[in-house]
Amino acid sequence: MPPERLPLALTMGEPAGIGGEIAAGAWAALRATGPVFLLIDDASRIPGPVRRIEAPEQAAAVFGQALPVLHRPLPRPAVPGRIDPANAPAVIASIDEAVALARAGRAAGVVTNPIQKSALYAAGFAHPGHTEYLAEIAGTGVPPVMLLACPELRVVPVTIHEPLKQAIARLTPALIAEVARLTAAGLRRDFGIAAPRLAIAGLNPHAGEDGTIGTEDRDIVAPAVAALRAEGIDARGPIPPDTMFTAKARPGYDVALGLYHDQALIPIKTLDMAGGVNVTLGLSIVRTSPDHGTALDIAGTGRADPASLIAALRLAAEIAGHRQKGFV
Amino acid sequence: MPPERLPLALTMGEPAGIGGEIAAGAWAALRATGPVFLLIDDASRIPGPVRRIEAPEQAAAVFGQALPVLHRPLPRPAVPGRIDPANAPAVIASIDEAVALARAGRAAGVVTNPIQKSALYAAGFAHPGHTEYLAEIAGTGVPPVMLLACPELRVVPVTIHEPLKQAIARLTPALIAEVARLTAAGLRRDFGIAAPRLAIAGLNPHAGEDGTIGTEDRDIVAPAVAALRAEGIDARGPIPPDTMFTAKARPGYDVALGLYHDQALIPIKTLDMAGGVNVTLGLSIVRTSPDHGTALDIAGTGRADPASLIAALRLAAEIAGHRQKGFV
Repeated sequence: MPPERLPLALTMGEPAGIGGEIAAGAWAALRATGPVFLLIDDASRIPGPVRRIEAPEQAAAVFGQALPVLHRPLPRPAVPGRIDPANAPAVIASIDEAVALARAGRAAGVVTNPIQKSALYAAGFAHPGHTEYLAEIAGTGVPPVMLLACPELRVVPVTIHEPLKQAIARLTPALIAEVARLTAAGLRRDFGIAAPRLAIAGLNPHAGEDGTIGTEDRDIVAPAVAALRAEGIDARGPIPPDTMFTAKARPGYDVALGLYHDQALIPIKTLDMAGGVNVTLGLSIVRTSPDHGTALDIAGTGRADPASLIAALRLAAEIAGHRQKGFV
Repeated sequence: MPPERLPLALTMGEPAGIGGEIAAGAWAALRATGPVFLLIDDASRIPGPVRRIEAPEQAAAVFGQALPVLHRPLPRPAVPGRIDPANAPAVIASIDEAVALARAGRAAGVVTNPIQKSALYAAGFAHPGHTEYLAEIAGTGVPPVMLLACPELRVVPVTIHEPLKQAIARLTPALIAEVARLTAAGLRRDFGIAAPRLAIAGLNPHAGEDGTIGTEDRDIVAPAVAALRAEGIDARGPIPPDTMFTAKARPGYDVALGLYHDQALIPIKTLDMAGGVNVTLGLSIVRTSPDHGTALDIAGTGRADPASLIAALRLAAEIAGHRQKGFV
C-alpha cells in the first residue's frame, strides 16, 4: 500500500470518556477529505456509521462510507462517566496494537484518545502517563519531548509534571540544552523545518534584568543558549516570558521552550481556539493526541467537541508525510 | 466644572521615548469622541497640533482643535533614543503636577506615560517604579495593587518584580487574601462590579492534583480562598493555571489572580491585540498607564503605536465615571 493510503491508528482511550463520540465526530468531519484513520475499539459502543474491518489495509476503501473499526470487544459495557477497572486491559491493549501497527508499517502513525490514569493503575499500569508508556514501547533511546501545537504557536515545556519549586531547582544548562536539541531534531524530522528557530524563555520576570531579578537567567539559561548556538542551533534567549508570546513576537520563532509546565501551556491554551494538539517528539513512530482529558463529566451527552482530535489526526498525517519525505 | 468635563492629566514620561508621539496619536484618535485629556510636557517637542493652556479648566474647550498642553519647558532638548539625566527632574515634576491636579479635583485622573527608571535614579528617584512612587504621593494607607486589563481579561499578579523562587517562598494565605481583598474592593469602586468574581490560580501544574504535584496549592492557596469565601468574597481556586485563561474559562470570572508576575502577564500579553492597560488600584486618585515601556529604540521614527495609551485614557475615564457614581 502506498504510504499516503496508510491509515492512522486511533486508540480507544478511556471507554467511559468522550473518546468514542469524538472519534465518530472526527470521522464525519474528515470522511470526504481524509486523513484516513481506523479506530481500535469496541465497535458496538461507537455512535454513527461504523464498519468492522479485519486489517488496516481495508480502512482506506471503507473510510468514505463509515468509520473503520478494528473491533476489540470490551469485557464489560462502557458506561459514560463511570470508570470500570475491568476494561483497563483493553485500553492498554488498544495502545499496544496501534503502536505495533505503526512499527510494522501498517499504520502511518498513532493518535491516542485520552486515558484515565487512575483507572489503569489498578490494572498494573505503572507509568506517569501516555507519553512515558509510549517511550517504553516505541522509544529511540532518547527522552521523549512533549510539544503542543496550535495554528499560532508551538511550545515545549522543559520540565513537566513536577512542583514548580522543584522544577526550578532541577534546571541546568545541560537539561535545557538537551530538550532544545531534541526539539530542534523533532522540528526538522517531523515538521520539515530545516533550520528551526528556538525561542527559550527566561525564568524570572523580565528574564531577570541582567541578574537584578534573580540569577538563573544569567547563570543557567544564557549558558544553555550559548552552547546551543555554538552547535549551530538557532536558539535565542533568555527571553522575557511575558512578551515572548505576543502576536508580534510569535512569528519570530518556530517553537518556544518554556522552562516549566505552565510557562509553556498557559499561552497555548489561552490562544487555542481551534483545538491544540499534543505531539510526542523522539519516538520511533508518529504520535499525536488531542490536548484535553477524558471529560467524564460530559461523556455521553453529545456535547464533546472533536476539534482537537481532528487537529491531532491532521497533524499526525502531516508529520507522517514529512517523515516519508525523509527529513530525518 | 461638571465632573464629566474634567480632563484627564497625561504625564510627560521619558522625553527620549515615545511618550510625545503617542500622546499626539491618542489625541488624533480621541479628539472627536473624548475623553478629553491634557498633557503636562514641553509643548515645543510634541508633533501635531498643540495648544498651550494655562489651567486644566481650559482643556475641554480646545480639545476638538488641538492637544492641550500645560507647557513645562525641558532644561535640555529631548533627543529621541538618547536619555539625558538633566531632564529627569522635569519628568518627576510632571507626575507630581498631574497627581496634584487630580487630588485637587481639577483633573479626573492621571494617565502616566512610560518612564525610564535608570534615568531617574541619577536624579535621586528612589522608588522601584511608577506605582510605588504614586503610592507614596497618593496612597490610601493600603498597598497599591497592579491590575492589567484588556477587553477579554483582567489580571492581578500577587507578587511582581521578584525572582520566581523568592516569590514562591513569600506566598502565604495572608498575602494572597490581602491582594484578593484589595482587588475585590478595586473592582467594586473602579469598575462598578458589585460582587466581583475572583479566580485564583494554583501554583503547581494542574493546581497540584490534591497534593501529588507540590503542596502549596493545598496548604497555601486553598486556605486563602476559604478565608475569602468566609468573608463573603466570591473567590474560587486554586484553579489549574493552564486552563484558567482559555476562551471558555474567561467569562466565568471578573479578574484572575496570578501568584507570580508571568502567570498573570503571559496570558494577557498573549491575548492582547488592541492594547492592554495597567491600572493601579488602591490610590486616592484614578491612575492608568499603557502596558509598554519607553521604546527608546523606535522613538522618533513614527512607528510607535498609540493603541495602549488610547485604551488607558478610555479606561481612566470609565473608572473616574464609576468613582463619581459612588461605587465606593
